[in-house]
Amino acid sequence: MERIPILQMGDVLLVTIQVDMHDQLALTLQDDLAERIRATSARGVLIEISALDIVDSFIGRMIATISALAAVMDARTVVVGMQPAVAITLVELGLNLTGVSTALDVERGMRLLRQAGAGVE
Amino acid sequence: MERIPILQMGDVLLVTIQVDMHDQLALTLQDDLAERIRATSARGVLIEISALDIVDSFIGRMIATISALAAVMDARTVVVGMQPAVAITLVELGLNLTGVSTALDVERGMRLLRQAGAGVE
Repeated sequence: MERIPILQMGDVLLVTIQVDMHDQLALTLQDDLAERIRATSARGVLIEISALDIVDSFIGRMIATISALAAVMDARTVVVGMQPAVAITLVELGLNLTGVSTALDVERGMRLLRQAGAGVE
Repeated sequence: MERIPILQMGDVLLVTIQVDMHDQLALTLQDDLAERIRATSARGVLIEISALDIVDSFIGRMIATISALAAVMDARTVVVGMQPAVAITLVELGLNLTGVSTALDVERGMRLLRQAGAGVE
């Protein structure tokens, strides 16, 4: 199962991160996402991270890369479902997910994307 | 990360199975789902299994249990994203997911649930 599923809902792609990410898996995800954005003409990407207890610099970089990649392909990325503890750590460490939008949960993320022109219908 | 995230979209709950299931994880998922169905008054549950290369009797039983559990709580379960190879194996082995609806992907599953009275809006 060395591949993270990408679910399509209208012109939004949803990725739920559940497993420990490593280099190869992150690269595969980036490739798959770019391919799927092209194939589906998606306008938005939702990255759901509620299963993550820790967002380290590796994950942070992966999210930033995906976001930049999607932006080049005219899709907007929103990170959703961040645990409170993760948010606290990010702020305390002074880390920020540069250029990446966040929303509380999938529904709000979807609303954000819909306002930006993407949506489920 | 020993917990499978349950995402809410309107009155549908979405579960993406990405990791190898074992007893405790399956039990936790069932408990969490029952709790979330009650908390959110969900009318539908989508179980996305595109990451699974194999659906063995353990997974089959888990899906059947979740479906029965949801039904008791007045929610309908749809399994989506089954890989062609998995479908072939199920048919060849004469296994069937009794009482469980299936749909090709999340969008069609969502449409099925919407027709049954649940939906994203």
